[in-house]
Amino acid sequence: MVTSPRRGKDRTRLIACLYPMQIQTIDWLGNEKGYLKLIDQTKLPRQIKYLKCRSWQDVAESIKQMRLRGAPAIGVAAAFALYLGIRNLKTTNYPNFYKKFSVISHALLSTRPTAVNLQWALNRIDAIIRSYQRDFNLSRVIKASFQEAMKILQEDREICLQIGLNGAKLIKNNYNILTHCNAGALATAGGGTALSIIYQAKKQGKKFSVFATETRPLLQGSRLTVWELKMNKIPVTLICDNMAGFLMSRKQIDLVLVGADHIARNGDTANKIGTYTLAVLAREHKIPFYVAAPLSTFDYKIRNGSQITIEFRNPEEITHIQGRPIAPLNTKATNPAFDITPHKYISGFV
Amino acid sequence: MVTSPRRGKDRTRLIACLYPMQIQTIDWLGNEKGYLKLIDQTKLPRQIKYLKCRSWQDVAESIKQMRLRGAPAIGVAAAFALYLGIRNLKTTNYPNFYKKFSVISHALLSTRPTAVNLQWALNRIDAIIRSYQRDFNLSRVIKASFQEAMKILQEDREICLQIGLNGAKLIKNNYNILTHCNAGALATAGGGTALSIIYQAKKQGKKFSVFATETRPLLQGSRLTVWELKMNKIPVTLICDNMAGFLMSRKQIDLVLVGADHIARNGDTANKIGTYTLAVLAREHKIPFYVAAPLSTFDYKIRNGSQITIEFRNPEEITHIQGRPIAPLNTKATNPAFDITPHKYISGFV
Repeated sequence: MVTSPRRGKDRTRLIACLYPMQIQTIDWLGNEKGYLKLIDQTKLPRQIKYLKCRSWQDVAESIKQMRLRGAPAIGVAAAFALYLGIRNLKTTNYPNFYKKFSVISHALLSTRPTAVNLQWALNRIDAIIRSYQRDFNLSRVIKASFQEAMKILQEDREICLQIGLNGAKLIKNNYNILTHCNAGALATAGGGTALSIIYQAKKQGKKFSVFATETRPLLQGSRLTVWELKMNKIPVTLICDNMAGFLMSRKQIDLVLVGADHIARNGDTANKIGTYTLAVLAREHKIPFYVAAPLSTFDYKIRNGSQITIEFRNPEEITHIQGRPIAPLNTKATNPAFDITPHKYISGFV
Repeated sequence: MVTSPRRGKDRTRLIACLYPMQIQTIDWLGNEKGYLKLIDQTKLPRQIKYLKCRSWQDVAESIKQMRLRGAPAIGVAAAFALYLGIRNLKTTNYPNFYKKFSVISHALLSTRPTAVNLQWALNRIDAIIRSYQRDFNLSRVIKASFQEAMKILQEDREICLQIGLNGAKLIKNNYNILTHCNAGALATAGGGTALSIIYQAKKQGKKFSVFATETRPLLQGSRLTVWELKMNKIPVTLICDNMAGFLMSRKQIDLVLVGADHIARNGDTANKIGTYTLAVLAREHKIPFYVAAPLSTFDYKIRNGSQITIEFRNPEEITHIQGRPIAPLNTKATNPAFDITPHKYISGFV
């Protein structure tokens, strides 16, 4: 099934979008009885397939399988997943209710250990529920959780726009901008983080072009970023991850813009594996390196990057591509999904 | 057809090999009327398929399609290709003979513009032929060319061994060694350059392990290096190119060993794309970074790396993997096959 994101029943649901991009990566459809609608990003760019999540398990599985990815989008999805998990609970006893809620919350937290937005969104719903501890009312707590999840969604869209507007001044005419992984509309409920800057700069009439790293092993760059940028008519050239240094050495990169999954109090930043390498290269070539992220990605509880848990994923993501082996049988591989960029390599945050 | 490299008619042809590895990447079978035998490396690791080249065009096409790759191996193949190109010539007139020879030599030179060993091997055969200019004798010049090609082959095997013996002292017990692309038996007629060091260190009883970068876009690391090292029972872990920085930041790499395709007089080194990035990372983490290469890779005619021609290959190598698209249709990509590592990043040459 290939459908345009602008066709079908949901067309009227698209909010008046301030970004060039009209993709709804994540959205809630209908009233409180509705469902969470996600693009299945593992199918992109060959197929635009939407998933309807009506249970928290649907959402958890989508996050784990990276059908939905990107720290801000994961945060929004987690909030709705909690709501989906509690909306049919029947108990009128707060401790019972909270126990069941906690089981779901823990299960969601374990889906992706690095993205702090997940924890942050769960905490926001948790705070709502705790506020009903003394005067427990089942239907009211469920309704309030739904409203909080909707608020998180709307806030994320607004934050993306603000990041874009604030960051656009970093881009000058004729710049070549390097980005890594996908920090775009597909990583958020809105127009993205790093790519929102690019969309706003384009709206302001600036002329520039983008180099996107393919981002092995899961190829978010070639599959998602190139697709998003092409849809928005932004000139983009794909490179392999190991080619960025070459372009920099030939003075073909003016600015590096990336997103983030977890930022420590001192500015050390966890982002998709390979980000640290780009930051080292950028510093070596005196190229500004900026991280674009919402406040929910900042984690003031931890002092520095050494306290961030790095997720290690299945080695088969490296030894196979699209299910086909590319290495000898029984090849050992290590697959860290993120790395830490110490703050000294980062020119600034947007 | 899957055959073990030790089986079949050619078994007796295997020279007593001083390396753990018994693979014959490139060999001449039979007497002067024989043929060049190559492993088709595009089929590895799924299939060990040998190619019989009986014309210079067969060899040129194999180099262009990267069925044979690796600077030293390309040099050896080019020498035999020239011999194959002239062995059936009938002219007894030197200028005519030399003209036909030059056409072939130029065609071979254009197959891969970066590997200097190609030029070097062509020059050696060229010198043999020129030595017959005054006293031209067709059968003698053909015989002498064959002998020179055989000499280049034997020298390459000996050089690989010497590189291994000399370099083995770089490896200490419990080291984790990072290598990029394939600088092994599959890149030479012998036991490799960077990997020869590893094989000799193993022979000396040292215990260590290797991290191999997959080396996008053509995956020489996952397809070739992992295969070679596994065949030689050397512990190897595959990583994506963008993961080396992460391992270094966690002090999991003690030494970087790579090969080279073209080394300028000042030590600036062209090698597989991504090498420069590893060198910058190694310096940032104070990890020794060594280049292993035969003298034929050194090019004293050029002052520095800026004079080395970088080959740009087909963008489809990036947008497709094993013939299947991994990016949107009509994605623009740039595909430099090599980069230049300035000498200041290189701890030493073996």
